[in-house]
Amino acid sequence: MRLVEKGVLIVISGPSGVGKGTVRASIFEQENHNLEYSISMTTRKPRVGEVHGVDYFFVEKEEFLDRIDQGQLLEWAEFVGNYYGTPLDYVKQKLDEGKDVVLEIEVQGALQVKNVMPDACFIFIAPPSMEELRNRIMTRGTEAMEVINKRMQKAESEIGLAHEYDYIVINDTVENARDRIMAIIEAEHSRSNRVLEYYNKNIVEVE
Amino acid sequence: MRLVEKGVLIVISGPSGVGKGTVRASIFEQENHNLEYSISMTTRKPRVGEVHGVDYFFVEKEEFLDRIDQGQLLEWAEFVGNYYGTPLDYVKQKLDEGKDVVLEIEVQGALQVKNVMPDACFIFIAPPSMEELRNRIMTRGTEAMEVINKRMQKAESEIGLAHEYDYIVINDTVENARDRIMAIIEAEHSRSNRVLEYYNKNIVEVE
Repeated sequence: MRLVEKGVLIVISGPSGVGKGTVRASIFEQENHNLEYSISMTTRKPRVGEVHGVDYFFVEKEEFLDRIDQGQLLEWAEFVGNYYGTPLDYVKQKLDEGKDVVLEIEVQGALQVKNVMPDACFIFIAPPSMEELRNRIMTRGTEAMEVINKRMQKAESEIGLAHEYDYIVINDTVENARDRIMAIIEAEHSRSNRVLEYYNKNIVEVE
Repeated sequence: MRLVEKGVLIVISGPSGVGKGTVRASIFEQENHNLEYSISMTTRKPRVGEVHGVDYFFVEKEEFLDRIDQGQLLEWAEFVGNYYGTPLDYVKQKLDEGKDVVLEIEVQGALQVKNVMPDACFIFIAPPSMEELRNRIMTRGTEAMEVINKRMQKAESEIGLAHEYDYIVINDTVENARDRIMAIIEAEHSRSNRVLEYYNKNIVEVE
């Protein structure tokens, strides 16, 4: 018996290189979850095999800019000439259907979401150590040292924003991080600020 | 990898008749938990089979009153001539050992704990409906209608204090309530207000 039919918006974020994409994938590989992955919108052209409405919502730049103007994006960013963002209507629809919606986004995007929907649940995925983060960034490819150092600097400044989040989840192993996030999602459904109004109206006052 | 070695104080409370004792027992029947049940102190005489340090810490009234004076009780109450309370030193010792300590107490006691240790985790066990609460109170014994009505009145005023708690957990079934509480305890170990200081000191600043 869950007290509120509306879903919870779960924002999974963290520094680049921390492995948040792997953690998110592991969450959705589980059976019997009631989660919905928020599909991003982009102006980038589809790659071979990518499907509209599955991998991304692919739109023209004009439509994307219109959506920005009309406040129809929960968060957005430009990256090497392409726009990426989260359609607000899709998220709201799924929440109204009672689905917990999972966003996996960069730190700057998460802070945008916090401005628009402060009652979302903000989870910061953190590395078990700075050395481990450097290892993960280095083993991603054969980048030049300069690029790696720049990424580390960016990651460090992002880690400085961890206090903006409700939870800090260490990604020591993917399974541990996944289990912690599943516990957090379950717990959030009992948080009194989410359920109190509903409880008073539908349980206490009905006799 | 847990971020903080110190345990979390878990306060399980709720109106009389809601079944919080059964839920608490179910939590401790599980294998592999890292929880410690907080043993109460009382001036009541031991009943046959009750063991000092297991069921209660049995003490003389003088010692109990001394402890009240010295602020050595986390909460206390008098009930038909006997005193009952939670020894602060025992709780602090177990928290320092890294155990999550579970208190199962009345609503008034929980509010006392909140004054002394506001960073504890406060869980309100709530009935699925007021009718169901009345059924549970009625089937407890063969009480007179007057007694039952008094208990219901007390329960209703206690339910009015649910907003003082961090979580509201519906006791629709014992297993559901238990599972929700276990998720809450796990989630609390990742809450940023609990772990941020430790994370910054021991992960971010150490390289």
